[in-house]
Amino acid sequence: MDLAPSNRRRFLKHPAAIAGLAAAGVDPSSAKTPDLDAPSDGERNLHEYGARSHYETAIRTGALGGPLLGFRTPLQNSVGIITPGSLHYIVSHGYDPPDIDPRHHTLMIHGMVDRPLVFSVEELQRLPSVSRVYFLECHGNTAPSPLRPSVTVQDTHGLTSCSEWTGVPLSLLLNQVGVKKGATWLIAEGADVQKHSKSIPIGKATDDVLVVYAQNGEALRPEQGYPLRLFVPGWEGINNVKWLRRIKLADEPYMSMMESTKYAVIHTDGTSRWFLFEFGAKSVITRPSGGQQLPTRGFYEITGLAWSGAGAVRRVEVSTDGGKTWADAKLQEPIARKAHTRFLFPWNWNGEEAILQSRCTDEKGQVQPTVETIAKFLKIDLDYIRKSSTMVADFNAIQPWRVDRSGKIQNALL
Amino acid sequence: MDLAPSNRRRFLKHPAAIAGLAAAGVDPSSAKTPDLDAPSDGERNLHEYGARSHYETAIRTGALGGPLLGFRTPLQNSVGIITPGSLHYIVSHGYDPPDIDPRHHTLMIHGMVDRPLVFSVEELQRLPSVSRVYFLECHGNTAPSPLRPSVTVQDTHGLTSCSEWTGVPLSLLLNQVGVKKGATWLIAEGADVQKHSKSIPIGKATDDVLVVYAQNGEALRPEQGYPLRLFVPGWEGINNVKWLRRIKLADEPYMSMMESTKYAVIHTDGTSRWFLFEFGAKSVITRPSGGQQLPTRGFYEITGLAWSGAGAVRRVEVSTDGGKTWADAKLQEPIARKAHTRFLFPWNWNGEEAILQSRCTDEKGQVQPTVETIAKFLKIDLDYIRKSSTMVADFNAIQPWRVDRSGKIQNALL
Repeated sequence: MDLAPSNRRRFLKHPAAIAGLAAAGVDPSSAKTPDLDAPSDGERNLHEYGARSHYETAIRTGALGGPLLGFRTPLQNSVGIITPGSLHYIVSHGYDPPDIDPRHHTLMIHGMVDRPLVFSVEELQRLPSVSRVYFLECHGNTAPSPLRPSVTVQDTHGLTSCSEWTGVPLSLLLNQVGVKKGATWLIAEGADVQKHSKSIPIGKATDDVLVVYAQNGEALRPEQGYPLRLFVPGWEGINNVKWLRRIKLADEPYMSMMESTKYAVIHTDGTSRWFLFEFGAKSVITRPSGGQQLPTRGFYEITGLAWSGAGAVRRVEVSTDGGKTWADAKLQEPIARKAHTRFLFPWNWNGEEAILQSRCTDEKGQVQPTVETIAKFLKIDLDYIRKSSTMVADFNAIQPWRVDRSGKIQNALL
Repeated sequence: MDLAPSNRRRFLKHPAAIAGLAAAGVDPSSAKTPDLDAPSDGERNLHEYGARSHYETAIRTGALGGPLLGFRTPLQNSVGIITPGSLHYIVSHGYDPPDIDPRHHTLMIHGMVDRPLVFSVEELQRLPSVSRVYFLECHGNTAPSPLRPSVTVQDTHGLTSCSEWTGVPLSLLLNQVGVKKGATWLIAEGADVQKHSKSIPIGKATDDVLVVYAQNGEALRPEQGYPLRLFVPGWEGINNVKWLRRIKLADEPYMSMMESTKYAVIHTDGTSRWFLFEFGAKSVITRPSGGQQLPTRGFYEITGLAWSGAGAVRRVEVSTDGGKTWADAKLQEPIARKAHTRFLFPWNWNGEEAILQSRCTDEKGQVQPTVETIAKFLKIDLDYIRKSSTMVADFNAIQPWRVDRSGKIQNALL
């Protein structure tokens, strides 16, 4: 299907198309003489597909050694709720994104179905589509790096980002293949070298899961699964299988390597928990935040992000005195479900030490916990979290930032 | 103010930060040995700030000769409502964007005020902020290129785009300087070589105008006014002064070159109209659209964009039979005021000729007109529009696309 007449590098003289004054028409087909006013090749390329100012230097940071690679979004520079595609966090498992030609990529849906089907990317793009703003987050976000005073919000919370995603509801595709009675799980598989696979319960799959092909108005970026990924709103990043090529309906989970080992959570008593899915209520102040410096006493807008896998953010409270008193922050509207919500709070810094923190309440009434509450719930003591580098999955503790008298800001968690 | 600890090219070994299993802590400061699993320099750069797949080739097109330059958004590839910054339309007036160091850029507000003030970019970023999704459009969008059958929706409507913009309410800044009684206009001036200036009535300025510094979660792009632009929601693009450096309060408009000549509208009786501001109700089908080809009979989702300078889109109707019958399209929610709204409409193509068009109704009850209605209102005849290349400013006629029996799609307006 040829529905994209792009790359038609046409730079025709056409002086009347914008001018507000009457002008003689020019037949574009006759306009092939060089135009001295036209941009040079370099300028032309930037006009074709732009770049940011060379004064802007915020980057994803935090490549991790070993088999896992995580590149974190510079949340200290974030504004609004959209993360630009170029700065969306990346977690991969030790390999580069596959280089996939979308004309040859397909999605097969099979297993416990009446009619196994194979869809091309173009066929999927012709189907009824949905666009939604959703956050995405790695279940390892926020731990264990909060344990050092020097960390920034990029270090602590940079494995979450938020975009407008566009794709086809998975329920529509499942209707087309006809899911057999007894199919309770689906196993999604990517086209990466490791064939990353993830089991997802059928109830979620038929609720709000999408097969997405676009992010923020253009095709998915390669590191986000170009040309297709599964999108599982509000659930741990690991479920959102990139470079999606296969969905198999089954009557049990697949117990793939990632879900049974790396993304299981080992408890201190030796047991482990395999299937964690939905994120709780979470928030963090992004500015002012760790590593930043307040240059002077006076007015600052405290701002940050709140989100919940359960749905909409209902309330964000901010404390500037280490949790003694709290006041409601303003939430930037419209508030989308399972999306970052920007909160804003006016603050006058009087030059004294201050501890800044935020607390999110979501539509289910879930309140973001303190680290003490989490430790109690998990039956581990704070010292264990403090001294080890063990990750607490889905860690959503309230994050305190300490402003000292010089205006220097440091992590104050543990 | 040092609130952006970016460019801290730290790529430390830190194996435990993502892994789901317990691991011994690694002191980042001791981890300077080369990591064979780490990405190469080239990969690292793409991981720091990403790029799209090399298979994606949609570009802004339509550089115009002479003193005006317009680069149009490839709307035929658009999905959702966000336009990526790299593909946001550009209209400039014959020069490249100035290369502005934000540390040395300031905004002065003066004229009929109690306390003239100069703000640095950092000072503005410390003030209470607002993030909103808004469309932007050139008043010359959609004319006169619709007159040829071969045009694409990028040619006809590509001078509109939509982003999440973040900035400071101008009303807040005007409160700080204290507007004197009798001040009825402000004149905004850019730092470009032409010092583009635009007069705006004080009523709009204190309503929803913003001084913006960010677009889609990152700094404004250079061609969008980096580091500051005025944003005047729902009003013609010319008002949204880029590279904003000065706002002067006055008791009359400035009658700047752009507003009194190029952006005035000459009527056929020799009179002209100087101050046009707010766009009316408008929509266009972006897919399937001109220049595209339907490969086969069967199901297609007709999709497009609707918007209005007056506020929210309330309704979009679609006709597939040249306007004989109309049916309501589904609007993608949430619907933001003065923003693009995505509409979706299921269609089965039976292989016969079809004429596809959309009609927008906004919150004020304004209905998108036909070209015949516009000609009648402006007291010009269709032949005049058809034969001349004269632009009709703020042209918002219903746009018909003809699908012939071979599946080829062409412009059917005039």
